[in-house]
Amino acid sequence: MNQDYIKPDNWSIIEEGFDAERVKSSESLFSIGNGAMGQRADFEEHYSGDTFQGSYIAGVYYPDKTRVGWWKNGYPEYFAKVLNAPNWIGIDVTLNNEQLDLFTCKKVENFRRELNMKEGWLSRSFTVTLQNNNEIQVKAKRFLSLDLDEVGAIEYSLTPLNSDADLVITPYIDAGITNEDSNWDDKFWNISNLSIENNQAFIEAQTMKTNFHTCTFMQSDCFVNNQNIGLKPQVIKTDNKISFIYKVSINRQETFTLQKFGGYTVDRNHDKSNLVSVAKQVLKIATDKGFNQLLEEQKLAWAAIWESSDITIDGDVKAQQGIRFNIFQLNQTYLGKDSRLNIGPKGFTGEKYGGSTYWDTEAYCIPFYMATKDEKVARSLLEYRYNHLDKAIENAEKLGFKNGAALYPMVTMNGEECHNEWEITFEEIHRNGAIAFAIFNYYRYTGDYSYIPEKGLEVLIGIARFWQQRATFSADKNQYVILGVTGPNEYENNVNNNWYTNYLAKWCLDYTLEQIEKIEKEYTSDFSRIIKKVKLTDEELKLWKTVADNMYFPFSEKQQVYLQQDGFLDKELISVADLPKAERPINQKWSWDRILRSPYIKQADVLQGFYFFEDQFSDKELERHFDFYEPFTVHESSLSPCVHSIQAAKLDRMEQAYTFYLRTSRLDLDDYNHEVHEGLHITSMAGTWMSIVEGFGGMRIKDSKLSFTPKIPKQWKGYSFKVNFRNQIIKVDISQKQTSFELLSGDKLEIFVNDKSIILNNKKSITIS
Amino acid sequence: MNQDYIKPDNWSIIEEGFDAERVKSSESLFSIGNGAMGQRADFEEHYSGDTFQGSYIAGVYYPDKTRVGWWKNGYPEYFAKVLNAPNWIGIDVTLNNEQLDLFTCKKVENFRRELNMKEGWLSRSFTVTLQNNNEIQVKAKRFLSLDLDEVGAIEYSLTPLNSDADLVITPYIDAGITNEDSNWDDKFWNISNLSIENNQAFIEAQTMKTNFHTCTFMQSDCFVNNQNIGLKPQVIKTDNKISFIYKVSINRQETFTLQKFGGYTVDRNHDKSNLVSVAKQVLKIATDKGFNQLLEEQKLAWAAIWESSDITIDGDVKAQQGIRFNIFQLNQTYLGKDSRLNIGPKGFTGEKYGGSTYWDTEAYCIPFYMATKDEKVARSLLEYRYNHLDKAIENAEKLGFKNGAALYPMVTMNGEECHNEWEITFEEIHRNGAIAFAIFNYYRYTGDYSYIPEKGLEVLIGIARFWQQRATFSADKNQYVILGVTGPNEYENNVNNNWYTNYLAKWCLDYTLEQIEKIEKEYTSDFSRIIKKVKLTDEELKLWKTVADNMYFPFSEKQQVYLQQDGFLDKELISVADLPKAERPINQKWSWDRILRSPYIKQADVLQGFYFFEDQFSDKELERHFDFYEPFTVHESSLSPCVHSIQAAKLDRMEQAYTFYLRTSRLDLDDYNHEVHEGLHITSMAGTWMSIVEGFGGMRIKDSKLSFTPKIPKQWKGYSFKVNFRNQIIKVDISQKQTSFELLSGDKLEIFVNDKSIILNNKKSITIS
Repeated sequence: MNQDYIKPDNWSIIEEGFDAERVKSSESLFSIGNGAMGQRADFEEHYSGDTFQGSYIAGVYYPDKTRVGWWKNGYPEYFAKVLNAPNWIGIDVTLNNEQLDLFTCKKVENFRRELNMKEGWLSRSFTVTLQNNNEIQVKAKRFLSLDLDEVGAIEYSLTPLNSDADLVITPYIDAGITNEDSNWDDKFWNISNLSIENNQAFIEAQTMKTNFHTCTFMQSDCFVNNQNIGLKPQVIKTDNKISFIYKVSINRQETFTLQKFGGYTVDRNHDKSNLVSVAKQVLKIATDKGFNQLLEEQKLAWAAIWESSDITIDGDVKAQQGIRFNIFQLNQTYLGKDSRLNIGPKGFTGEKYGGSTYWDTEAYCIPFYMATKDEKVARSLLEYRYNHLDKAIENAEKLGFKNGAALYPMVTMNGEECHNEWEITFEEIHRNGAIAFAIFNYYRYTGDYSYIPEKGLEVLIGIARFWQQRATFSADKNQYVILGVTGPNEYENNVNNNWYTNYLAKWCLDYTLEQIEKIEKEYTSDFSRIIKKVKLTDEELKLWKTVADNMYFPFSEKQQVYLQQDGFLDKELISVADLPKAERPINQKWSWDRILRSPYIKQADVLQGFYFFEDQFSDKELERHFDFYEPFTVHESSLSPCVHSIQAAKLDRMEQAYTFYLRTSRLDLDDYNHEVHEGLHITSMAGTWMSIVEGFGGMRIKDSKLSFTPKIPKQWKGYSFKVNFRNQIIKVDISQKQTSFELLSGDKLEIFVNDKSIILNNKKSITIS
Repeated sequence: MNQDYIKPDNWSIIEEGFDAERVKSSESLFSIGNGAMGQRADFEEHYSGDTFQGSYIAGVYYPDKTRVGWWKNGYPEYFAKVLNAPNWIGIDVTLNNEQLDLFTCKKVENFRRELNMKEGWLSRSFTVTLQNNNEIQVKAKRFLSLDLDEVGAIEYSLTPLNSDADLVITPYIDAGITNEDSNWDDKFWNISNLSIENNQAFIEAQTMKTNFHTCTFMQSDCFVNNQNIGLKPQVIKTDNKISFIYKVSINRQETFTLQKFGGYTVDRNHDKSNLVSVAKQVLKIATDKGFNQLLEEQKLAWAAIWESSDITIDGDVKAQQGIRFNIFQLNQTYLGKDSRLNIGPKGFTGEKYGGSTYWDTEAYCIPFYMATKDEKVARSLLEYRYNHLDKAIENAEKLGFKNGAALYPMVTMNGEECHNEWEITFEEIHRNGAIAFAIFNYYRYTGDYSYIPEKGLEVLIGIARFWQQRATFSADKNQYVILGVTGPNEYENNVNNNWYTNYLAKWCLDYTLEQIEKIEKEYTSDFSRIIKKVKLTDEELKLWKTVADNMYFPFSEKQQVYLQQDGFLDKELISVADLPKAERPINQKWSWDRILRSPYIKQADVLQGFYFFEDQFSDKELERHFDFYEPFTVHESSLSPCVHSIQAAKLDRMEQAYTFYLRTSRLDLDDYNHEVHEGLHITSMAGTWMSIVEGFGGMRIKDSKLSFTPKIPKQWKGYSFKVNFRNQIIKVDISQKQTSFELLSGDKLEIFVNDKSIILNNKKSITIS
């Protein structure tokens, strides 16, 4: 555990005391977002210490020219970067001619920062003594409106404590920003227009290359002791910045307050010629409501989110705080309103990795969104891939595939690949399987088959074509093999016959063949539309079946386990427990070749297959594989502990399940990986949710019915969670002694608990001991 | 074949006619060097078209900070770059106020460029019509002295043809140069002093980081119609450049000539405080001799080189030109005078690849230098690695090896690794074996065992320790395996049990054990010195033997061939002949993953092992492996055709051997790979030499005796070569009918021809039909 400054609290993330060393970590942890935009918890006032300034607009990116040591054919020319957007939160302050700067002041006392997850706002308060010995109390609160998602609001108050004060308060918007992550230190923004109207300012700027048009705006109003003093600002306009300068003299103990509203309008949502006028409308709506009403509405909006997604944990405040932090951040990142968006691995909290969409979405995030939101949200995530199908086909063509074979990118922003390590970009192709699996999983959970004939089947066909072409017939084995891949365990590169990949490939082919058969029978008009479009032939289907039926799976007769890949048993099989502590984490201590030839596993690989397809294996098989592979697993991916936690729980190993749960739930809050300053691990947060609901709660869908096998770690008194299953909300409450189920919305629902049928009726709780 | 503008000629490389498109290619092809410095054939006068300006000082490099997309532990922090040095050849010209520039002039006629390989000089002549309609004839000749290797000389003549002319001739030295190849566009040179004395100029500059001190110097003298006119220049000095401006008016048909001497003195060879005074001494010696005498001495020096290394080919001018070009360039690059230097893959002709020493030196170049020069040269190349042993041990330690295990870098300048692709840097470890093999090969050829007890054994022990630690005991196979390697065929990465690597590892262990045993008995004082230094134990030796005796070799019972690596037979085994032409070369047409999972072989891999260790395999085995692997070999490395040519000749397939020979001998002259503008393929040129001497001539060492099995391609009337064997020079002359052997120096030598013993006596020729 690397930090312990976050105070345990059921509903808030709280930091007390100022420490310049923690600024960048806290900027990540206290980030706020509303699905449409987000920002690190940067200070409003100038800060000259080490800071990572980041403000991000969903879907606005920059295709940075790829930089590599040695170019390989097939690398994407550009790499979509998450793009730092113009700053609208800035408020510079001077007091009796000295700048307020927490890095250079004499003293900071009573520093307190709170991210209130229940209500969706960030606050900061402190008392500062400047070098000129003036003391001033500062309180700041800000939030990004969930309802009006183009606007945010800040209330920033200053109270001089020991002297009267000449204050200069300078709210500004600034498009002269740079990216923390940039390959060639290019300029990313072109600024086209700066305009001012009364106490409103607007900067229109376009991204270079992608040409996203944006308008960054602000309005500010001044209050003394809560009275609007109607102060008019002096305006300073430079090439890329508009500042409003307010000068005011107040007595000591009086409070000056600046209310600032700001945000972005973007041509992703509006005509590009209207961005300023839309910004004015948005500002009007927001300021008509005013800061307080907007905040009240914010509380209501977050209450609605918690209503269907909260998890409570009784008897363990840190665990409670951890799971709510995960649920909160997922909702800050993605709300499912826009099918062009997805769940970036760092959300709006940093820039690392570039791109926004990994297979994390399908493998880890969709279950969370399916169970906590309307099914449209998950469907929207599926549609995202449907909308990128043509690009996935193009991508596969670049790599030599034909006839509509689709390879989805390892990471993308707009459907184009933006990753450039050959062993990942070209070889970590199992991602294609997760996209097919998500289609299956969506239908299994929601019962909404319509997506498949309407859109999903085309995706499945593209993916099936890829797998058939990517498999190689080995004359030597008289079976189909898949050569040169990287599995989910990225500590192996360019291996042959990664079992997980081969299994997924076969499953994709079989599943697609089944769907084609069903749609041919049951959705004839969809069928003929699709067949006409994709030009599928019977020969092709036969070939798919041949490949699926004759897929090779590496297996050890002696160990009775499927092998992660060919040759796995040649490794020196020393378990992780026997590795010296000083050599961990191996990704920081070992050279890459040593990692590659070791047996150590970064995250679930064979076991990921057992997770996806658990019905196809017996518990004995699961146990054998878990016992074989987990001891070699170093869990150096944020996505690793959750799958193992779920499987340990299934195997009734609750101690182990709980240990894994702890690693996933407070990964960022406790900064296990020493990197939280770069941003949060958003997608793995969905894995934490799965650990509780699927792991401890044992939630599954069996024959279209919800099913549970409730368990509880001995460290907890109880826990509860809610899931939305086919538009009915069920609350599950598990204590050491008993489990209660309550149908919060909906009339009646049959569920299975430990394989026994139970009928739930509206608002009536059923308890099982 | 991609270009045919080089005129066939027995002794010269000749270009006729000016084509701006060919400028960069010709700059490479006409490069000159003298082992201590070298330069591309850039024009002396200003040229505003596309050009690649390069001038290089042997051993002066810059550690450029590594740039990669994704950092891997173990990557070197710096990457030694071949460093473009200050320009001393520049001579700007204006004629009646118009600048002489072949790119902007009205017309260029009678353009002719010649690289005279027999005498070691470069010339250029042309008639140019300027935009002002003045016609002028230009003749330039330059060379880098072999004897005085810090100096070069230029004679640059101008003859106005159709009008009298006001000429301004501006010779200069310029340290304001940049690198073509640079990771971060850093500045590489710090200029410390510019000084002028009479008609001499000096710029002292140091490389950043490595702090090599250099002095770039020039002297110039003016002649009209061959009379020194004693003209004094006007001097212009900027921050990084000194120019001498000569203004002279001459009549039409008169000839103005500038003689310019220039070069570098470097603190690798002199005290850094004396560089200017040494430069003055060098200039004095050179100018006392004068241009013409220096050129005469140049001819003699090259004659001496050709005396022991020439190859003649009768009846095929292009082949003759090709082989001499190769021998010439190898000698321009490395002459064996300085054991801190090595044979860079691009010599002094370009910057690509960085570093200077690959395993090419041991695998391809040492045989050439052993057979064409005094044995000290080859020994010097071995000592280069001995001198880097401590760095190789450090390098291995960085990757987790212990106890004095040595891993030589993939490419280096000073012993430190400067390559950064994990699949090469960390995995192409067979390079270590080639370094051991060269020690064996040196002793086999020269009979000089003294190197092994004096220095070689320590290198062998470091290498043996590496192999023992790098092998993994496979409980599954009950044998030692070597996991995660890249073999010579770089179209496979991270494979298990590359047969060549495993074989070489076993051989290194066995050979080192034998040498230890021999030295323990025969060189007792060396033995105790070494054992004390390296702390070798009996347990360690036992472990080496266990690993060597139990090494695993992938083998196909069905095909009766060793497999290139585990799983090779799973590939889709379509031969290269059946690949569509449009898909070749695959390294330009296919994505990397497709190459990796294909069976296609970049250069000899299993067959490289059969080449090194041919005595350990029968001809039948060679034939079987050649027939199995060659059909999958795309020969997309410049190092590939030579080994195959030698083996085809051995198998009596002279047509095929000749085809391979053609590909290697004119690789650069005919620009097979469309990249000659980046520089020449120096190290593969030694392979061309091997194709003739070892391939067609069948030269081998058997039981310490020279042995030949002479063959001749039917396309040739005859060919001859000379080899220096243990200080005796033998000339071998092979025609379609007979072979003659003559001992040019030395008293008496027993050789074997087609396994029959023949005694050669001094100057007497023996002919065998």
